[in-house]
This record gives sequence, C-alpha cells and structure tokens, in this order.
Amino acid sequence: MSYRIPRSDIHFLLEHIIDTPALLALPGHEELSLDLLQAVLDEGARFIEQEVVPLNPVSDREPAVLNQGQVTTTPGFKETFAAFAQAGWQGLQHEEAIGGQGLPKLIGAIFGENMNAGCASFALCSLLTDSVIETLSQAGTPEQKACYLPPMLEGRWTGTMNLTEAQAGSDLSLVKCMATPQADGSYRLQGEKIFISYGEHDLAENILHLVLARTPNAPEGIRGLSLFLVPKYLAHAQGDYAQGSRNDVYCASLEHKLGLHGSPTAVMLYGDNKGEVGAGAIGYLIGELNRGLEYMFITMNAARYAVALQGLAIADRAWYSAQAYAAERKQGADLNKKYPAPAPIYHHPDVERMLQTMRALTEATRAFTYYAAWLKDMALKTPDASLRQHYQTRYEFFVPITKGFATEMVKEVTSLGIQVHGGMGFIEETGVAQYMRDARVFSIYEGTTAIQANDLIGRKLVRDTGETALALLAEVQSTVEQLRTHAEDEALQYIAERLDQACSAYAKAVQYINQWHQDKQARAVYFGSVPFLMLAGTVLGGWKMAKSALACTGQEDEFSTQKRSTAVCYATYVLPRAQAHVQAIAGSKVMDTYSLYS
Amino acid sequence: MSYRIPRSDIHFLLEHIIDTPALLALPGHEELSLDLLQAVLDEGARFIEQEVVPLNPVSDREPAVLNQGQVTTTPGFKETFAAFAQAGWQGLQHEEAIGGQGLPKLIGAIFGENMNAGCASFALCSLLTDSVIETLSQAGTPEQKACYLPPMLEGRWTGTMNLTEAQAGSDLSLVKCMATPQADGSYRLQGEKIFISYGEHDLAENILHLVLARTPNAPEGIRGLSLFLVPKYLAHAQGDYAQGSRNDVYCASLEHKLGLHGSPTAVMLYGDNKGEVGAGAIGYLIGELNRGLEYMFITMNAARYAVALQGLAIADRAWYSAQAYAAERKQGADLNKKYPAPAPIYHHPDVERMLQTMRALTEATRAFTYYAAWLKDMALKTPDASLRQHYQTRYEFFVPITKGFATEMVKEVTSLGIQVHGGMGFIEETGVAQYMRDARVFSIYEGTTAIQANDLIGRKLVRDTGETALALLAEVQSTVEQLRTHAEDEALQYIAERLDQACSAYAKAVQYINQWHQDKQARAVYFGSVPFLMLAGTVLGGWKMAKSALACTGQEDEFSTQKRSTAVCYATYVLPRAQAHVQAIAGSKVMDTYSLYS
Repeated sequence: MSYRIPRSDIHFLLEHIIDTPALLALPGHEELSLDLLQAVLDEGARFIEQEVVPLNPVSDREPAVLNQGQVTTTPGFKETFAAFAQAGWQGLQHEEAIGGQGLPKLIGAIFGENMNAGCASFALCSLLTDSVIETLSQAGTPEQKACYLPPMLEGRWTGTMNLTEAQAGSDLSLVKCMATPQADGSYRLQGEKIFISYGEHDLAENILHLVLARTPNAPEGIRGLSLFLVPKYLAHAQGDYAQGSRNDVYCASLEHKLGLHGSPTAVMLYGDNKGEVGAGAIGYLIGELNRGLEYMFITMNAARYAVALQGLAIADRAWYSAQAYAAERKQGADLNKKYPAPAPIYHHPDVERMLQTMRALTEATRAFTYYAAWLKDMALKTPDASLRQHYQTRYEFFVPITKGFATEMVKEVTSLGIQVHGGMGFIEETGVAQYMRDARVFSIYEGTTAIQANDLIGRKLVRDTGETALALLAEVQSTVEQLRTHAEDEALQYIAERLDQACSAYAKAVQYINQWHQDKQARAVYFGSVPFLMLAGTVLGGWKMAKSALACTGQEDEFSTQKRSTAVCYATYVLPRAQAHVQAIAGSKVMDTYSLYS
Repeated sequence: MSYRIPRSDIHFLLEHIIDTPALLALPGHEELSLDLLQAVLDEGARFIEQEVVPLNPVSDREPAVLNQGQVTTTPGFKETFAAFAQAGWQGLQHEEAIGGQGLPKLIGAIFGENMNAGCASFALCSLLTDSVIETLSQAGTPEQKACYLPPMLEGRWTGTMNLTEAQAGSDLSLVKCMATPQADGSYRLQGEKIFISYGEHDLAENILHLVLARTPNAPEGIRGLSLFLVPKYLAHAQGDYAQGSRNDVYCASLEHKLGLHGSPTAVMLYGDNKGEVGAGAIGYLIGELNRGLEYMFITMNAARYAVALQGLAIADRAWYSAQAYAAERKQGADLNKKYPAPAPIYHHPDVERMLQTMRALTEATRAFTYYAAWLKDMALKTPDASLRQHYQTRYEFFVPITKGFATEMVKEVTSLGIQVHGGMGFIEETGVAQYMRDARVFSIYEGTTAIQANDLIGRKLVRDTGETALALLAEVQSTVEQLRTHAEDEALQYIAERLDQACSAYAKAVQYINQWHQDKQARAVYFGSVPFLMLAGTVLGGWKMAKSALACTGQEDEFSTQKRSTAVCYATYVLPRAQAHVQAIAGSKVMDTYSLYS
C-alpha cells in the first residue's frame, strides 16, 4: 500500500505538454521559474509521501466518530493537518495579496492531485477550504476577507459548503433553510443540511460554513437563494474567535458510507436552539441578497475542478498498486516463452491491457486536467482582456469535462486495479478495494456526471452554437496533421488515424446536438448529454496523448518508450469508444421516441 | 431493499424467446408442461421473496464469524437453509435417477438466478453444492454416488471446491497439496487451500471437499493433479457420518472481503495434525489418477455458468432498487413540462438512460444465458447423438461468454444503480452499494474474465477456425433479415441496422483472430481476447433483444411497450460498443509491437 508520486510524469507534462513558458511570462510570475515550480512540487511530494500516504489505510478502518456533538477524526489526521498548515500548503495557490503563496493554479492542482493520492478523505478538508477561500476572496467584503481569509490560509480554520437538504439535491430550487434578518445586519439561520463534508471535525480551531438559505419573502426557486457565512465560533468582543461564543450550528449525525471513511459527512442543524447564542445560527450575508447561487458556483466550480483531481489521484494510486503487484505475482508461462515459468503476470497480454489502459486513462486525463488549470491561470493574469476572456471561456468548457470524465474513468481504473489483483483484490487488507470504494462518490458529489453534462451542453456548447467546442477540435486536428508529418513512424501514424476518426465522431456529435437544440428537441439532446461529455473527454485525452507521443519521437530511452506505448494503448482501447458514443448520441432521437417515461 | 422476482419477464422468455416446446419434447420430459415449469418457478419465487430476500442486508452487516474452528453464519441463514433443504430445492435440476427432481437445467438456472437475487452470499452454498453433485454424478464410482449424493441432494450435506493455493491461482500447475496413498486405498492429504467458499459453516451436518492435489511421483504441472473427496466427518462404522470421526481438515481463518460478507471464505488446512484421525486428512480418489483437472472442470464449468446467473441476479436487484427510487425521488422539472415540478427523476432523460441501460443489459444477458441452459438440456437429452454434440459444442462456446459478459455487465449495472441514487447511493444503509461490492468478485472467482476469454478463444474459437462462432452469427443475421421484413416498424428497422453493424464487427473480429492464430501471433490474439468476449456478448445480447422486440411487434400494451423500449435502448447504448471492441481487436498487433512487457 505504498505509493510514489509520479514525479517524472509531472515534470514531463510541465516541460513538454503544458505551455509553461507562457505561464511563467504572466505578470506577477516574475520570480517563478520551471525549476522553482518543480522544487515546490518535489517538496510537497516528500511531505505527502511521508505524512499523508500512510494515513490512507487507517482512514478506511478508523473512520471519524461523533460523540456528543464532537467529531474525532482518524488517528493521525490532526497531527498531519497541523504539519500541513504549518508548512503553509493551504495558501499555495492563493494570491499573495490575501496572504497566499501566489503560485499558479496549475501548481495548486498538481499538489492537490498528489494530496488526494496520499489520502483522499484527508485531502478533502483542505480541498473544500480552498473553494471557500476562492468564494470569499471574490464575493466577500473587505472586512470579511480581512477577518476570515488569514486563518483559513494559515490552515487554522477550515471551510464547508452547505447546499444539499433532504429534499434538495441536484434541484436547489427546493432549498428551505431560512435566514431571518436581524437589527444588527446579521441573520439568524434555521434549517437542516445533509451530506456536509467536514461539517464537524477536530482538525481546526474554527469552521466556516457557507450556507445557501432563503430570506423571508424572497422569490421562489433558485432566484430566492442567498449565501451566508456561519462560523462555528463567533468573534469574541476582542476579535478572538477561539474564545468566542459557540454558534447554533451542530452536527446531528455522521453518515456510514461506502468509502472515504476518514471524511466526516455530517448532517448539520442550523438554529436548533442548542447554542450559547440563543435560537438561530448567526450568519453573515455574502455579497447581495438572492445572488447566493451565483456565489456558491464560485465555490462549486473550484470544488468541481478539484474533484477531477481526486479522480486522477486515486486512478494513479490504483495503477501504482496494480503494476507493483503484477510485477511481483507469478502465474503461468508467458506466450513467447521468454521468461522462466511462472512469469510475472504483466507478461500476459490481458494483464498488460488492463495495466496500460489504467495508465493511459490516467495520463490522458491528467494532461487535459492540468491544461485546464493552465487555462485558468492564463484567464486570471493575461494582460489582454479579450485573450483573458478566451481563456476563461475555454476553461469553463473544460471544467465539466474534467470533472465528469476524470470521475467516470476512475471507476473503470480502480475496478481494473482490483481485477489485476485477482482474488486478492477482493480482500480488504490488500487495500485496492478501498480505492474503488473511495472513488465511487466522485461522480456524484459536487454535481453528478449528468449535472456536469447538462452544464457542458446547456451552458457551454449550445450557447455559442459549438464555437468553443469546434475551436478546440481544430486544434486537435492540427495535432493530427502534425502526427502525419512523421510518415516513417508507425506508432504516430496509427495514433493519427484513430484520433482523426475520434475527431469526426466529435464533429458529428456537435452537429447533432446543435441541430436538435435548434429544433427544440431538448429530450433528445439530453439523452446524449453524458455520452457527449465522455466523447469530448475521450478526444481531448487523445489529443494530449498524441502530443505526448510526439514529444518522444525518435527517442528510445525507457521513459519515452513507456510514453509511446501508453499512447498506442489509448489509441487501441480508448479512442475507439468515440464511435460508440457518437452512435449513442445519433440514436437519442429514436430513444426519445420510444421513451418509457417521457 | 425489497425485491420482486421478475416473473413476467421470465414467463415472456419461456413463452416467446426460448424454444420451450423443443425442451418439453425431450425424452424424460413427458410429464412436464410449460404450466408446470412456471408453477415450480412461481413457488420458488414465493419462497425466495419471503425467506431469502430479507437475509441480504443482514448478511452484509453480520458476516460469518470464526471462533475456535467453528463458523457461525449470518443470523437467519441456518433456518432458511433448512427450509430450502426441506422443500427439496437442492435437487431441483438433478436427475431423478440420483434422487433429484429431474427438472431441466433451464429451470435450475432460473431458480438459481432468483436465489442469488435474494441473497447471493447465501445462495453461493447451494450453488457450489450443485457443482459438486454434478462432478460426483459424472466421475464418482457407484459406491461414492450412493454414499455422497443423497445427503447433498437432500440439503443435509454441502460441497466445496478446493483449487487455489497461495502460489496457485489462475495457474493450477503450481498446486502443491500432497495426497499420499494408504494401504486401504484411501489417501492422506496435506496442504493449504485458500479462498474456499463455504469451506466451513453451520448450515449442514457434513461438508464434502473436492480437493485438487498431487500424488508422490506424479508428473509435474497440471497433468499430475488428481481429485480427492475429503469429508469433514468420516463414516462411522455403522455408516453414520454425524457420529463419525472428525477428519483432519480445518478452517484456519476467514477473509475480510469487499462484499459477499455472508459467505465464509476460508483458508483450509489439510493434514495439520488436528483431527481425531491422526496426521493427514483422509481423502478418496475421484476417477483416475492424474485426471483431476478434467473432473474439476466439471465442477468449474457448472460453477462458471452459475456465476453468470449471480451476475444477472444482482443486476436485476440493482435495477429493481434504482427504478423504485427514481419513481419516488422528485427533483427538478421535466423538460417537456408535462408533470408538476419537482418531477420524479426518471422523467429526466439521463436517468432514463441509466435505468434503461441497466435493464437492457440485464434482459439481454438473461436471454442468452437462459438460452445456454436450454442448449445444455438439449445436449443432455436430444436422442440424436450428432445433434447432442452440436448442442454441447454450442453450449461450451456460450459458457465463457455468459460468465465473462454477465459478470462484467453487472459491474456496470450496479455502479449505474448507485449513480441513479445520487448521494444516497454512497450511504451504506441505502443498500445499493452492497450490490456493487457483492458483485465485484463475480468477474474474478471461478476464473477471471481473462481466463474466460482464453477459454473462449483458445479452446472454442480457434479450434474449429471459427465454425461455431460463425454458425451463431448466421443465426443472428437471419434475425436481422426478419427485422427487415417489418419495413413499416421504425423501431425494428433501427434495431436491424445497428445489430447488422454489430454483426459486421463480430465477423471481422473472428477473421482477425483466426488470421493471427494461424500466423502464430499469440500475443496479438490475447491482447484482443477480452474485447472479443465482450463483443460476442454484445452481439448475442442484441440478437435476443431483437427477438424480444419482434415478439412484441404491433402490440401496444404496457409490457410490450416496455420491451420495445428496452430493445431500442440496447441498440442505442450497448450495440455500438461492438465498434469499439472490434477496433480494439484490430489494433492488437500494433499494441503488441509497442508492448512494454513482452
């Protein structure tokens, strides 16, 4: 159950696949260099391998426990979180202006992936805090920022997102939690929120809850939702929170979950008359009334992207375990009789198929997920406003794809990881079943894959009639042309052919969806929405794998050989799925005609 | 967590899809009728729904426990097994000549599916006993049959399969367990077997272990393996086993598994000097020396087919839970605004896509899995010997496909079942995560999917250069022609087109594999073996779904409408995967060229 962070893969991406020079040339990045970025990541990797990786099996066996309103986390979490905070990792990707380290989002993303590979249920706490920092820095008042951001950046306080109620999951228009204005400008909140990750725990001095609630006489539906900040401890007269009153927000219970046992998933009661402050949890409005969902989306988009990193992370760890096992476990003779029997099982083609598919899916998704973080950095700091807008639009197109595709692929990868282990994979002590269990929530929380696909199609694809989608395709096709210039290279020609076929599938799919959208055939569009998301991820992953193979052209060292092999594997087992996806989309109108539940 | 056995689907299959008249016309079936078969199945369904279904959540929370060599099973198992035995269900599919009920294998298969849907970890005990009965009736001496079969058929004794050792899983040539001949004709066994399902338990008076072991000076590898029967209790002088000596076979530990918690998975020690019989477990040779694997394959083939039923079973139960939840859970407005908001979530196209894909995969796999059982019955009882051989060959072609495809598809179906439940799916109390956990071992035990694919290609496909494979294809294509005669029926034309495309993919795949086999490109063949198995299952499922749609032509009742919709769904989301599979197979030679581990 050991794990090594894939440093050479990360370095390869930063050196050959990502346009790191453009990132370094951005204003505010004058003091950065590739060496510095890699040094920071290597330092993070050391911390994670030493401190975080060993927490993972413990987190599974010894979940967080609730006792009289107090949550005790997995043994080791508290000390490791203190070390994490001490080293300043929570501030890594946040602006220096608010007290962060000012490193690019890309670096935050890579560190985040590594943290989650170390122990996802542990990393979830800082992941959510990052998202809350993002929201407060964009939507908070100067006073709110001054008060709440420093302790979060220092890792002394953590943050949570409170959206879901029993009757309001994907449909937030049904949120009932009430916020009543008070004479002093604050609000009193009453309601119950469920599925609140790290809603209560013992890692930090204070917890800041971002809560979606409704004010009296607010409009119905999502236009009547406002966002409130509800601290677990309120400021003391002297501004000291640790000494302040306990707010009327309590954890009523923790869920017994399939995975992520180390992460306390709480039912939170607001205004249940238990606090020192009297009836109602005291909360502070963030931004303007009735714009709560808009602000919550800042948190949610950051969290969605971060969940994509969780998917990547566990996929990588699952692959790491599987290849280590396959190198060690000996069964049967290899078909070419090159090795003494019994041979390590990775000599059997089907085991290689599984291992390399795991690796190909992970590497392809990692490459376009990092690319998305790069887009975000470019969108934040490029001097030219219209270029900034270009990067931002493209980043927003990528967010649902990264979240949807990474979290779907990790289900496949972790399941393959079990399969490589044979019977041992089904035994909990082996540790690889935990990866599958932990990862199973990623395609659900922060918006299911269907919600991501709705976002991709409804908010991104059809709004510009496919312009962003097709501009990306043109870039993929220019990579196909680049591959074709290497006429002597069989692998590159093979990849070119298959990537080209996948591009045609994608182009057709965009056409179908735009057409049906114009024809007001909304049901047909959404019968094909998840297939389209998967198709887009498949093509974008293929694009990055092609670049990876190109970067290794003519090189025969072990690393390049491995990269070429993984790209060939992606072209063999993954890219052809584009054909199945486009046919699913093409058939959506027939599917709607014979729908059982329309 | 309730569950209703899909009686109307089963009746539909028996009445319209399976050639039940041919089955009823077989010699020995003179007293059977369709009504009788359905009555037996309905009686079984009542028993299962009342007694077995409620065990399932308990089996997950309260696993079997080992204490001082004794295993106590989940509360309720013992009483329910007694009721099962009492009613004679263990003998259902076995010949009257040996004390069974003499019903067709098809009926045993359907009952087996239903039992596993009720509680798979409970059903596993009788499933294995069925397989051991099969082996002893084929390979035992008359004395062995007389002694061991009746108590097994009465459900008083149960059976196990002991193949795996720590170093010998898929590779049985590495089995070390030793059997030393004794003067009285018996053997003394010494060795350790792992992953022995129901190796020890409290459901029966005695346990009969079938054990693969090696005799002194036997040839190396699999040709030196013999099969032994090792009873937990030996015959008393008066032939009474319950009073007999405790044999030297003990359960050393139980595994802590991802799923199937109710099934005790034992490490078994043979000849560890603990018994009343002195050193060495007393065992009796089955059949001839060194032909053990051949006999074990009788058990294993029966068990492999039965594991396909387990896959079907849990897929059906997962679908049942998901559709019930989707009908009840209300979120968001439906796109056509036909229903009051919030509407039941199955009105959202993506939820219907998931539900109907679950159902389509399950129904398609069920149809060809039952067809395989029908083939087995025809192979056993058809008067004409060459026809018997024809059915047997085809049955053997189907076994690895049913086992591989059903156990792969159940992973997808159970995971979709969680997805339909959203956040609730991740909460263990909901009960649907258990389906995914339980089902995860089906593609591993009794031979992994790769082992099934090896069998399909190495023993079935290339031996007759694709003759059986292509004869089947011709039948599928004649169904395509039948669909085409209904030119006015849009759904049937749509299914015809897509099934035809899938047939082309299958034909191409057979050609590739035969060619590479001839060219001695074994590694290329086996890089495509699992994709070929999945392709074959996809096409055969499509064939049966087409027949199902044909049987409903022109009918507009609710049941027929549902069947048509499911067939359209299969054509939309499942059949197109054939294109991805054939491309994976087509690319296998390139994959081998760039292999990392060749």
